Amino acid sequence: MSASVSSSPSEEQVDTEGEEQQVKLLTATHDDHGGVIVEMDQPMDSTAFVSILRASISQWRQLEKRGVWIKLPIHLVNLVEAAVKEGFWYHHAEPKYLMLVYWIPEGANTLPANATHRVGIGAFVMNDKREVLVVQERRGKFQGTGIWKIPTGVVEEGEDICAAAVREVKEETGIDSEFVEVLAFRQSHEEFFEKSDLFFVCMLRPLSFDVQKQEAEIEAAEWMPFEEYAAQPFVQNYELSKYIADICLTRIDGEYSGFSPVPISSSFSEEKHNLYLNDRGLKGL
Amino acid sequence: MSASVSSSPSEEQVDTEGEEQQVKLLTATHDDHGGVIVEMDQPMDSTAFVSILRASISQWRQLEKRGVWIKLPIHLVNLVEAAVKEGFWYHHAEPKYLMLVYWIPEGANTLPANATHRVGIGAFVMNDKREVLVVQERRGKFQGTGIWKIPTGVVEEGEDICAAAVREVKEETGIDSEFVEVLAFRQSHEEFFEKSDLFFVCMLRPLSFDVQKQEAEIEAAEWMPFEEYAAQPFVQNYELSKYIADICLTRIDGEYSGFSPVPISSSFSEEKHNLYLNDRGLKGL
Repeated sequence: MSASVSSSPSEEQVDTEGEEQQVKLLTATHDDHGGVIVEMDQPMDSTAFVSILRASISQWRQLEKRGVWIKLPIHLVNLVEAAVKEGFWYHHAEPKYLMLVYWIPEGANTLPANATHRVGIGAFVMNDKREVLVVQERRGKFQGTGIWKIPTGVVEEGEDICAAAVREVKEETGIDSEFVEVLAFRQSHEEFFEKSDLFFVCMLRPLSFDVQKQEAEIEAAEWMPFEEYAAQPFVQNYELSKYIADICLTRIDGEYSGFSPVPISSSFSEEKHNLYLNDRGLKGL
Repeated sequence: MSASVSSSPSEEQVDTEGEEQQVKLLTATHDDHGGVIVEMDQPMDSTAFVSILRASISQWRQLEKRGVWIKLPIHLVNLVEAAVKEGFWYHHAEPKYLMLVYWIPEGANTLPANATHRVGIGAFVMNDKREVLVVQERRGKFQGTGIWKIPTGVVEEGEDICAAAVREVKEETGIDSEFVEVLAFRQSHEEFFEKSDLFFVCMLRPLSFDVQKQEAEIEAAEWMPFEEYAAQPFVQNYELSKYIADICLTRIDGEYSGFSPVPISSSFSEEKHNLYLNDRGLKGL
């Protein structure tokens, strides 16, 4: 569906069905799937809202519209209950807004699902002395364990995986780096409420070497000989860490190839997106 | 944070501060990050809710708690406005509930972000005659274009990428298949409101060959000679399709290796999750 929305979500005056009476309707933009999108902004009394909403849905039904999306900023929280009582349900929410949705046709809806995955990265950074960049975390399940791990973090909304890996390394350790490739990824479920998680193990090349740890989240950070890192019981006993260590070692020795990013155009816009592929496998082309 | 929640989200009687007075508090479970999680279920008047909520937050503040999560099922929509007026904001929502959150300490919160990505798959399935399984879609941007494309779909909540690819091929074309590997993936942004998208190009091996197209979404489905598929202007002119065709051809000819899934244990449970890695690169180990 289209993400384009009206910038003036006020009401509009519409002359319905040739009658003289003027009925207020919600301003909506139309998406590519026969739906309408309403972005509310102006404060409104919930009784007035219900009346305008009913008239609007009646018109959209005549127009054989399908999904109705209402984006309610949090300052219009007074309208949430009214919309739900009119048959809307929650689609998704972000700190500043709630997206409500309604399905006009008979039968099951074909509305797109909400975002289902959080995305994280782990960053494997090695210097010329075969030392790996490792940290001890101040918070979370590794706090106080003495475990040295590779820097990890969450990919922010709208952020590229490769950019997130470079950013997390810089934030946690002060080290500048450039992205090389995705070595592997893990998909897991129900990590956070009902949501799933995709964790990308990334290899980066260091561009600076002086470790400056972040105070808030990181207890300690240093370059550690790879063998010392890999010998930790945490790495040896925990299947994911063991695989990561094995993959990284194989990669350093030149046997393994991961996926590296190639910027490509999207079909319908000039924007570039990264396609991650095995470019050693493709190089023959 | 922990996803474990109380199964009995009723109020509890707590004797506060040694006084005689009994104050009702919300039942909460404690997460690993110093936060509390409240799962509401029983209908409640919003005035009573505000009073109990204030008393509860006051106690949690004394206990030096940090984040407060309130999961409100949609039938308790009458409490949303009250919670927001008490300083809560939206964290995420699903059709049947809204998750509200509040941060007790001074300073910026360190609450985990909402899910940021939708995940989709494209399925490349080829038979022994070098024919690729292709479809024409009834809806969306490819409707009426005559374009033959590989089956695609959205990974459902809690579903493995490899399972989603097998499911979509079966649903759209009736073909049984087994998952081989992820050939490449694309990350794009703002595909759907503010959310990002991860699209995994998957290779599958067909286990049956009689095409039975799905009526609702698919206009046509067939086995098409690879060269005919790849010669379409859509494939040649659209960078993503061109790369997919090139990668698939290289893969068929044995030069390319993608990531195949290996089930691994998680560190803190017996559950298995898939790690996708280049097993041809690792096979020396």
